[in-house]
Amino acid sequence: MQETPARIDTIVAALDADGRFVRESPGDHGRSAIDAVHDPAMVDFVAGAHAAWSGAAGHDIAIPDVFLHPGLRSGMPPSTPPKSPLGALGYWCFETTTPMVAGTYAAARAAVDCALTATDIARSTAGASYALCRPPGHHAATAVFGGYCFFNNAAIAAQHAITNGADRVAILDVDYHHGNGTQQIFYDRADVFYASLHGDPDRAYPYFVGHAHELGTGHGHGCNVNVPLPEGCDDGRYLDALGGVLTTLEQFAPDLLVVSLGLDLYADDPLGDFAVTTNGIGAVGEAIASLHRPTVILQEGGYAVAALGDNAVAFLDAFTRPIDRAQR
Amino acid sequence: MQETPARIDTIVAALDADGRFVRESPGDHGRSAIDAVHDPAMVDFVAGAHAAWSGAAGHDIAIPDVFLHPGLRSGMPPSTPPKSPLGALGYWCFETTTPMVAGTYAAARAAVDCALTATDIARSTAGASYALCRPPGHHAATAVFGGYCFFNNAAIAAQHAITNGADRVAILDVDYHHGNGTQQIFYDRADVFYASLHGDPDRAYPYFVGHAHELGTGHGHGCNVNVPLPEGCDDGRYLDALGGVLTTLEQFAPDLLVVSLGLDLYADDPLGDFAVTTNGIGAVGEAIASLHRPTVILQEGGYAVAALGDNAVAFLDAFTRPIDRAQR
Repeated sequence: MQETPARIDTIVAALDADGRFVRESPGDHGRSAIDAVHDPAMVDFVAGAHAAWSGAAGHDIAIPDVFLHPGLRSGMPPSTPPKSPLGALGYWCFETTTPMVAGTYAAARAAVDCALTATDIARSTAGASYALCRPPGHHAATAVFGGYCFFNNAAIAAQHAITNGADRVAILDVDYHHGNGTQQIFYDRADVFYASLHGDPDRAYPYFVGHAHELGTGHGHGCNVNVPLPEGCDDGRYLDALGGVLTTLEQFAPDLLVVSLGLDLYADDPLGDFAVTTNGIGAVGEAIASLHRPTVILQEGGYAVAALGDNAVAFLDAFTRPIDRAQR
Repeated sequence: MQETPARIDTIVAALDADGRFVRESPGDHGRSAIDAVHDPAMVDFVAGAHAAWSGAAGHDIAIPDVFLHPGLRSGMPPSTPPKSPLGALGYWCFETTTPMVAGTYAAARAAVDCALTATDIARSTAGASYALCRPPGHHAATAVFGGYCFFNNAAIAAQHAITNGADRVAILDVDYHHGNGTQQIFYDRADVFYASLHGDPDRAYPYFVGHAHELGTGHGHGCNVNVPLPEGCDDGRYLDALGGVLTTLEQFAPDLLVVSLGLDLYADDPLGDFAVTTNGIGAVGEAIASLHRPTVILQEGGYAVAALGDNAVAFLDAFTRPIDRAQR
């Protein structure tokens, strides 16, 4: 498991050492913003799953081993959630690398509160803010979690802005992995634009979602943009692709930009295969900041722990420059 | 992993020691009987998966970690099989306890040949035969495998009989676990009756399938019977439930009876929670033999290795008595 507490400690230390960043504590936003995006029955399950699992399985770390694959009930009505906690886990989760422990629900709720607090700040200041969310969120879909993610912080932030008066929100996902959950949640929506640059799902997790031909459906057709990228993708190639995406996002004219910031686009990341440098990550931040939109940046993946602090500062650097606001 | 070669060695030794059983070698039946039941693309995958996985994952035992959960693409068109072997594995498999090694495909094909050879013998002699299949089959569905199973030996045997002239085939599944694959394959069929006695899926694997209210669909409505049984189910309770099922099967008047013989209904089985004794298993065999139908008995689960030989002989005992044929 690459998703460790050290990731966050490293980033906090680097931001504190930099000195330009003001820390705010997250405020309790309650559950309603989560229920507005996820199936409330899944939220209930995450809240109670660990206690139920520990009692039934006799050990403390909840990992599913059997999953609600569509082939299991092909030609039959859909399954209801199994009564056994061992079965229920594979009903609500799609993979084996997202263990649940005693503190999981509290941590997932706290990550959402971070995202929502940062969203409120970005909107009220018409500036930029960064939420150091852990666990990450972009793999969590309406009614299934996984990929280290339980609640989709970015989707919840976007919906929270819409609920509170924003007309259009764009989510830009620069994590190495496609944000399958965010895409699924907003696939038929015209008011939330989702754009992602990521390792091609033909070779990279999450495999089943993230192809270029997935454009959205119904009113949301055209509001989903996937840019699968090849192994070894370097700064030049990445920035070229990003430029095209930013042009599209600018035309959408969002009231709020949500950035899913995975730092696993970095060259040395153990879960990625791009060749993007720390300088390249700085240029990515600069290009996004040049949109001059109220921007909330949410931490997603990134597992090259020793470099995470430098890479986070490099990305955020352009958002600290007052000249950007003046140019708006 | 409880599904070990010792299971089979123990049963062979017990049958040889008994002396009443004549061994036959399985004949090669080719792939067409498998393709008649399973998605040929899944069969292709099983044939090539291990080699592809070893190359991509860099280790030798193929176990999926991310699965084609229906929530992943809710509101989107279905996924096509991922190009990455790591993703493809979770497209075709629903759980983590069914590793693929270099010999998997050959073993799965050989188990099918055992089942088909035994089916031919049962039909041509109008008698009983027993196929010592390994791997087992009843958890494998049309287009997804798992639960130690790759190809559904019982379903392939039943379809083989239909293809070769049988009008009606009944499959009776006495494995502790529900045969979700067999049910799914024939759920809309009126010519193949599926009946199962098993641990209630509210507490037992495979959790998502096997409820009493699952009766079949379309022309197959009424041709699927599930009898979920409680923890601690003993000989008396089991034989009562079996009696009701056999009455229904008798009314169906099958040309061939296929028995999915899981010996994990046994009291000491590490994966079951029934209290059925070796004598009880003998009584189960006797009750089924009393139907006096051409019967092919296929080995499914059963993991109390020390007792497997005695339990197999106990079950088969009634099928060795010539008086049964005379009473027909």
